[in-house]
Amino acid sequence: MSGLEIERKFLVHKWMDWKRLASSCSHIQQGYFAAVNTVRVRIRDDKGYLTIKGPSHNGGLSRYEFEKEITLQEAQQLMLLCESGVIDKHRYLVPYAGHTFEVDEFHGDNDGLVMAEVELKSENEPFESPDFIGKEVTGNRRFYNSHMRKNPFKLWRDTLPEEYR
Amino acid sequence: MSGLEIERKFLVHKWMDWKRLASSCSHIQQGYFAAVNTVRVRIRDDKGYLTIKGPSHNGGLSRYEFEKEITLQEAQQLMLLCESGVIDKHRYLVPYAGHTFEVDEFHGDNDGLVMAEVELKSENEPFESPDFIGKEVTGNRRFYNSHMRKNPFKLWRDTLPEEYR
Repeated sequence: MSGLEIERKFLVHKWMDWKRLASSCSHIQQGYFAAVNTVRVRIRDDKGYLTIKGPSHNGGLSRYEFEKEITLQEAQQLMLLCESGVIDKHRYLVPYAGHTFEVDEFHGDNDGLVMAEVELKSENEPFESPDFIGKEVTGNRRFYNSHMRKNPFKLWRDTLPEEYR
Repeated sequence: MSGLEIERKFLVHKWMDWKRLASSCSHIQQGYFAAVNTVRVRIRDDKGYLTIKGPSHNGGLSRYEFEKEITLQEAQQLMLLCESGVIDKHRYLVPYAGHTFEVDEFHGDNDGLVMAEVELKSENEPFESPDFIGKEVTGNRRFYNSHMRKNPFKLWRDTLPEEYR
């Protein structure tokens, strides 16, 4: 059930026996996500995803992540609720020596930025890198997609070595 | 795919022809929810739900709401990511004169508070209330569940008329 919810809310006269009018009862527990969690909606080609990430640990190296596929229509609706500064990129998969590098080429206000990520099974897992892999930026918040929408690459590209601008 | 994500991140030497090594390419757009959105995980008896609410309009009367069922296990995992102050309540459904009133009896730090909500199809829809319905609190942020976890009823119950304490 998604859509516009119109509701009116009241206090209850507790001394009255309101429970005898009830047709059902259920037990509800609910929690709320904090600013430290990233809540993201993604459209990848023709699929939608809703993702919640926990806080970063170990200098940005590891992070709990929950991801759920949703319909494209749901994702488009949720996009409308989001803050301005949608991230737009192409993601290339590059298999290399037993690992897959995800290479992101950004557009819009982050145009010109190209970043690669490799997912590991443990924090110490060794891996080989193709030649095009440059400076490591793990844990550097400037390069978090969630930060780049507010503080895009075009505002700070000149602070990087020329080869990355 | 949910779980701990371990990732290292790199800048790419853009002048190299890294695209020729790619096995696939997809287009990604992603947005992020702001503090003005409520992101909630709920366990209702043996079912889990993930809910995102837009900002309130018309004095709290209407609000866009997105809800997706998730597994109980997923909901339990997500509960661990949430801020402290989980809301715990029993919800009773009370059918009355063609509408259903949802009556919430709160526990824990909100013990003693009993509130009812009625969902309407339009903002002006008339409805009849059972006798136990008291003072209207639509749009009063104190009574938002998302606020009550930080500022629970026990801290301000004495500010209410005696009949509601």
